[in-house]
Amino acid sequence: MLQFKNPSDVYAFAYRQKRDGKTIGFAPTMGYLHEGHASLFKKAAANSDVVIASSFVNPTQFGEREDFIHYPKNPVRDAMLAESCGVHALFLPNTEAIYPNGEEITVKVNARTDVLCGKSRPGHFDGVATVLSKLFTIVQPDHVYFGMKDAQQVAIVQALIQSFHFPIKLIACPIIREPDGLAKSSRNVRLRPDERREAPFIYQGLQHGHCCIKKGERNFDRIIATVSNYYHSHLKLGQIDYVDALNYPELKRMHPEMHGKIIIAVAVCYDQARLIDNITIEC
Amino acid sequence: MLQFKNPSDVYAFAYRQKRDGKTIGFAPTMGYLHEGHASLFKKAAANSDVVIASSFVNPTQFGEREDFIHYPKNPVRDAMLAESCGVHALFLPNTEAIYPNGEEITVKVNARTDVLCGKSRPGHFDGVATVLSKLFTIVQPDHVYFGMKDAQQVAIVQALIQSFHFPIKLIACPIIREPDGLAKSSRNVRLRPDERREAPFIYQGLQHGHCCIKKGERNFDRIIATVSNYYHSHLKLGQIDYVDALNYPELKRMHPEMHGKIIIAVAVCYDQARLIDNITIEC
Repeated sequence: MLQFKNPSDVYAFAYRQKRDGKTIGFAPTMGYLHEGHASLFKKAAANSDVVIASSFVNPTQFGEREDFIHYPKNPVRDAMLAESCGVHALFLPNTEAIYPNGEEITVKVNARTDVLCGKSRPGHFDGVATVLSKLFTIVQPDHVYFGMKDAQQVAIVQALIQSFHFPIKLIACPIIREPDGLAKSSRNVRLRPDERREAPFIYQGLQHGHCCIKKGERNFDRIIATVSNYYHSHLKLGQIDYVDALNYPELKRMHPEMHGKIIIAVAVCYDQARLIDNITIEC
Repeated sequence: MLQFKNPSDVYAFAYRQKRDGKTIGFAPTMGYLHEGHASLFKKAAANSDVVIASSFVNPTQFGEREDFIHYPKNPVRDAMLAESCGVHALFLPNTEAIYPNGEEITVKVNARTDVLCGKSRPGHFDGVATVLSKLFTIVQPDHVYFGMKDAQQVAIVQALIQSFHFPIKLIACPIIREPDGLAKSSRNVRLRPDERREAPFIYQGLQHGHCCIKKGERNFDRIIATVSNYYHSHLKLGQIDYVDALNYPELKRMHPEMHGKIIIAVAVCYDQARLIDNITIEC
């Protein structure tokens, strides 16, 4: 597996692949890779001739009081995992390489950001869209792979691709979970043992909401109340940041009653880790 | 000359050229073409295998009280002029084609915008950077051609290219002038005869400032005062929007005294047309 630090080297590598008629699959990550990332790499390897992954903890998507500095890192293990999943080239830029002019010019996301993580993390999706615009231009992928754990990110990246006319197809991949249901996350390592024991209730609350919908409940507010009540009685350590139910990918309530594709999404704050999870359902 | 309305058709055309090893020169315009644009096209034709021009009056770079609706148009003459200057493909999209999601995601310029036209036209360069990001991704140029009449635009587009890692070289082309010195502009047609007779003083004022620098003046404020005084005594119809002298392309005063490359820039408002001009000098 090749490893690159300079944008121009990755660009040259990708350019040669494209010139030779090969398709490029790309999975951007922030490193500290887990089975969720592995599933993206494997899908990319199955679909594309060449797989490029990036590992870059993007400072502009973190708020001032967030965990940028403490974001977990393990580049040696990451490289082994990426290679074992069929990644051909790993891009490991530093901040100066991606932001040669600092934040002189950035991307701004003006819709779908007033809910869920966008509401709790102002500016987060501006940072995501900024770094991805740069990475897409450098890597020139035909397909990009994102996990549905960050469902709001998937919706916004799809809009970014369409708005900026990137010739890219987005492949949204299912959430990978621990055996007890907890969604895989680089941040799970920062849970205390007692928090880790509690965290599987996050997914169970979502399943509880899903069950109610399957039984015929179509009222957004009642579904949210059901899931919230479940959390209030099961989460003793985690603080609920939000629980919401919205149409997906619009991230609005498009109808008075649930109709079409629905997301129930939650964020829970533990002492050193903010966890997110969601479930999407066709109504 | 080919003409395209759909981004995907231009992309496919450009993609084929690139695949065949050809270089693409691109000159984005707002139409109503004049000799200034012609000079860009001819330079592109001399430097690149394939020349693409676009004609799109970009709504997002106009302020609410600006001349978007009244911006002059003459698509038939534009096509003839473009073809005669060696343009191979003209891209004439409508607003929906460029902004399929409206302004859901935009580009924001956070530096070099607090002076000159950026100060007078808040949001103008956000609109410019947004549309150019889209056009660069659609057209995939190797070289892009911009006129130095919009010197602040040239500085910002250079920063955009660098910030977003576009594999593009920017070629800044000299200002083309009428025989009496007035900078060529699509907006000149909107001057009344008496305004048109006065407008050449704009360039003469800049030359006056240039002469002072050549004679050894190195104080920014005194140069600005010299040029401003010239305008106050020569412009009876035009209202001065700004006169400024700054380092270029930083668009700051990098030193207490003039040093390096300097721009003296001016904007003058007539009844139906706001004219800009500038001169750059090595100190």
